[in-house]
Amino acid sequence: MKEISSYPIETLRHSCAHLLASAVLKLFPETKLGMGPSIENGFYYDFHCKQSLSTQDLKKIEKVMRKSIQENHPFTKIILSTNSALEKYTLFDQPYKREILKDLQEKGTQEVSLYQTGEFVDLCSGPHVDSSGEIPLYGFALDRIAGAYWKGDSTQDQLQRIYGLLFLTKEELQDYLISRQEAKKRDHKKLGKELDLFYFDDAVGKGLPLWTPKGTIIKHELSEYVRTLEKKYGYDHVETPFIGNEKLYKISGHLDHYKDNMYAPIDMDGEKFYLRPMACPHHIRLLQRKPLSYKDLPVRYAEIADYSRFEKSGELMGMIRLRKFQLTDGHLFVTPEQLKEEFKDVCTMIGEGMKKLGLENVVSYRFSKRDPKNKEKYYPDDTLWNTAENLMKEALDEMDFEYKEAEDEAAFYGPKLDVQGKNVNGKEDTLFTAQIDFLLPEKFNILYTDKDGTQKRPVMIHRSTIGSLERIFAFLIEHYAGAFPLWLAPVQIALLPVSEKFRDEAISLKKMFEKENIRVHLCDDDISLGKRIHEMEKQKIPLLAILGEKEVSSQTLTLREIGEKKIFQRENVSIKECLEQLKKEIQK
Amino acid sequence: MKEISSYPIETLRHSCAHLLASAVLKLFPETKLGMGPSIENGFYYDFHCKQSLSTQDLKKIEKVMRKSIQENHPFTKIILSTNSALEKYTLFDQPYKREILKDLQEKGTQEVSLYQTGEFVDLCSGPHVDSSGEIPLYGFALDRIAGAYWKGDSTQDQLQRIYGLLFLTKEELQDYLISRQEAKKRDHKKLGKELDLFYFDDAVGKGLPLWTPKGTIIKHELSEYVRTLEKKYGYDHVETPFIGNEKLYKISGHLDHYKDNMYAPIDMDGEKFYLRPMACPHHIRLLQRKPLSYKDLPVRYAEIADYSRFEKSGELMGMIRLRKFQLTDGHLFVTPEQLKEEFKDVCTMIGEGMKKLGLENVVSYRFSKRDPKNKEKYYPDDTLWNTAENLMKEALDEMDFEYKEAEDEAAFYGPKLDVQGKNVNGKEDTLFTAQIDFLLPEKFNILYTDKDGTQKRPVMIHRSTIGSLERIFAFLIEHYAGAFPLWLAPVQIALLPVSEKFRDEAISLKKMFEKENIRVHLCDDDISLGKRIHEMEKQKIPLLAILGEKEVSSQTLTLREIGEKKIFQRENVSIKECLEQLKKEIQK
Repeated sequence: MKEISSYPIETLRHSCAHLLASAVLKLFPETKLGMGPSIENGFYYDFHCKQSLSTQDLKKIEKVMRKSIQENHPFTKIILSTNSALEKYTLFDQPYKREILKDLQEKGTQEVSLYQTGEFVDLCSGPHVDSSGEIPLYGFALDRIAGAYWKGDSTQDQLQRIYGLLFLTKEELQDYLISRQEAKKRDHKKLGKELDLFYFDDAVGKGLPLWTPKGTIIKHELSEYVRTLEKKYGYDHVETPFIGNEKLYKISGHLDHYKDNMYAPIDMDGEKFYLRPMACPHHIRLLQRKPLSYKDLPVRYAEIADYSRFEKSGELMGMIRLRKFQLTDGHLFVTPEQLKEEFKDVCTMIGEGMKKLGLENVVSYRFSKRDPKNKEKYYPDDTLWNTAENLMKEALDEMDFEYKEAEDEAAFYGPKLDVQGKNVNGKEDTLFTAQIDFLLPEKFNILYTDKDGTQKRPVMIHRSTIGSLERIFAFLIEHYAGAFPLWLAPVQIALLPVSEKFRDEAISLKKMFEKENIRVHLCDDDISLGKRIHEMEKQKIPLLAILGEKEVSSQTLTLREIGEKKIFQRENVSIKECLEQLKKEIQK
Repeated sequence: MKEISSYPIETLRHSCAHLLASAVLKLFPETKLGMGPSIENGFYYDFHCKQSLSTQDLKKIEKVMRKSIQENHPFTKIILSTNSALEKYTLFDQPYKREILKDLQEKGTQEVSLYQTGEFVDLCSGPHVDSSGEIPLYGFALDRIAGAYWKGDSTQDQLQRIYGLLFLTKEELQDYLISRQEAKKRDHKKLGKELDLFYFDDAVGKGLPLWTPKGTIIKHELSEYVRTLEKKYGYDHVETPFIGNEKLYKISGHLDHYKDNMYAPIDMDGEKFYLRPMACPHHIRLLQRKPLSYKDLPVRYAEIADYSRFEKSGELMGMIRLRKFQLTDGHLFVTPEQLKEEFKDVCTMIGEGMKKLGLENVVSYRFSKRDPKNKEKYYPDDTLWNTAENLMKEALDEMDFEYKEAEDEAAFYGPKLDVQGKNVNGKEDTLFTAQIDFLLPEKFNILYTDKDGTQKRPVMIHRSTIGSLERIFAFLIEHYAGAFPLWLAPVQIALLPVSEKFRDEAISLKKMFEKENIRVHLCDDDISLGKRIHEMEKQKIPLLAILGEKEVSSQTLTLREIGEKKIFQRENVSIKECLEQLKKEIQK
């Protein structure tokens, strides 16, 4: 086995892109070359070929590349004046390379570098490996072909892009391929369709999700849980409209700072209305419906609130980035003395929620502060910032909360605690946040009468309980690979009569389960039991109950569970026992 | 006592308006007269007076009017040419009357009638009573003074309008005044504020309700009940966005027929989006996400759906007419063979819902058909209309459903069953409807594969379960005068410790009730028990539990119930007994 390379992995990947271009030219001599950089996990190269490249072709190209690794050609750097380089590429009839050179010339570049490997020469600023033999022979593989416009511009020529993967060893490459396959299987967009959980329709609009019956069951279960949790922590639920007069967002500052993320306004009776990007102004105006006393505080408002945000269509992503979503939102209005304890309670509640969803070991917490060297980005009040950041740190430390600190990640108006989650592709996203805010109470002039009769300003905490229902749903689908825990599963148990003979028995059993509010599906299609079991497992139904001669005569069930966790007994489970255990597990 | 009058009541009311004008001229001779018609329950007259009229003045005017009734002046009709009438009014310096005459003259009216009573003469087309003594002496009363523009035009003079009430007898007048007072007390806008149930804020926008914590409890209870009921009737819940591409509403025809009720469009990426006025297109597109088989039917989708409708600000009315509301919406897609039974189930479900809300004797049902003489207003297909109307009638008759038939009240696309409710002012409103629709399945080209492999078109039923949450809420507030049944009450029981000494006892009791999911309020403010009881009764809390020496030592409660219905025992109720009964009553 080869020694581990001392080059940065990008150098190996970029050098391998040269071998790719060289091989393509060898096999398809009339090919025109585009660009070929290194990227995450590998590299690509863009080509203009007369023929449409196939997976078969990739195999052939790979073979030529491996041959040139084995032949161990040196990478030789050649320095040329831009003019001579231009002549060279004119000679070889490489119009895209010529265009690059001309662009460089226009910018006044006098000299360019080229790299030669074997017979192949490419315009390139390097760096490269010393010789092709240093590229891991089986650590690379060509991955796929895609279309790409020259310079990424849809008015230009369409080229064929070959993607390659490159890791230091064959094993690393294999690991990557396996985890990618696993991630693909878990992809919430793929599973969402297979399990019929949600749907996007172009006639309705991009980024506007429709929840199917199965998805809606999960959404309602999540909503119900969130509300129960919030009640436990002393929240009052409110409901406010998803639209608001522009006045609100002028006062709040959203129209100054956040307009790009907002939908265009709607004119009504000569006034402008916006679909709300955030619900804080609505909660504040609701609070202000009557005079506030210190006795009323803390006020804790929670709402599963409709949010509308304008995202460019290219930035939309499944249920993760949408043009409309529902945030498990909430705002606390507290006295300065209550702030620390209330913030702690917010953190405790978030922790409890993540645990219930089975995500306690999956999410991490980030304490996002202002950048003290870049203060002009933030609301200018050193005292407020110091107070808020110190208090938040104290609260987190007193709670033994595990968190990372991050400078320059705060909100404009205050520090925040970010709940971070990695999706199946390893990309870390902020799921939701809790933020301390001194600014909005000032902007809306919120006041309360204190014990001594003076008017004082409360502090606001913006917080979410489990984030947006859509994003956490996407996250849960991927985390559980669609096999939801019992309380969330759209169907909790499937009943499979062995044959037609036991159908009536199954129907009365179904009614019995339904009476206990258990979501049960009778799977009595006219196909073999084996096929039905397979179908139910594909649908990731947590529990299957099989009913045949033995079961009916003994009034028991034979159970099959999905996944590795085995909670239920497998055979001779009395119906009552099964029901009771199901109810207990659902309540957990 | 006077004999009952043989005149139509409008004649009496209009004649009384003449007495009013005569009396005002007597007391304030420089007054200029506007118009004075009869209206519902009475009459009014508009005046231009130098002084601002007061309630005191009304008393004086009333006195003069009664005197002229007692003096029994005949009403004498005088016919004049428009020209002479104009001279007369010029003489008396009555510019508004002159304006009317001039308008008549311009229209070519040659002759006008005037009526004289005593010294007073008014331009009037009649008819009138023969003499003022026939007007019920104590059956009329002056009611109030309001501002009104001449000819209802805000660019014209502002006049003072005096409203009068007139009934045949003093008793009838009294009854009306009492019921009006009762209605005022029940008015949902008034109670909504007093009980802090909802709130409108100009900065948020007119007609956009904000639900307070107490109102939200009721909203969630109603939603939860609706979903439970819908599950029982085999519905699948879905959730779809409150916005949609214009494509949807072009296909559905809303943009052709319903545009005036829709908000202005929002431009996004060069496409137009509308806040949806109805959710049918969304449910249809969700249905169409996969091919449909006869085995899938009936499909029953239900959603508590956001609706946005543009209403002129003058037409907005509390929670009854809004710019944004949530409909307990649903759509069924059925085979023609299933239609009748499914429609029956819809009616049964609506009946069950109305009963649960205590409205079974309050609502009435109207079967709204096409006008056979005015077919061009309706979707042109006689066969479809006859089929749908016959089928609906058959279904209603087979169910012994009590209903009235109404021609020319159908929807454009099909007949409907309207659930009608009278509000406290006696005004009948349609609370919600169930409609049969052959048209949208055609427009969206919905098809299913039947047993024989052919493609067929399903029929749609549009229906609501309890109407919009906002409108039914307004209706319930007025129906119960704010004293909601236990399951809906924002606070179900209030605990009142007799003194400070029993506060701890009350706190632990509160926790015990909360554990059982009972909404409990501890009322331990520093004021007398009597005042606290009064306050809790004003808040219409259904049950009060008083805790003193006797109760604590015997572990019992003394209970007080709001309203007339007495369900709970009053004294020596053991805590456990109280809890159990509360839970039972809430579940009812």
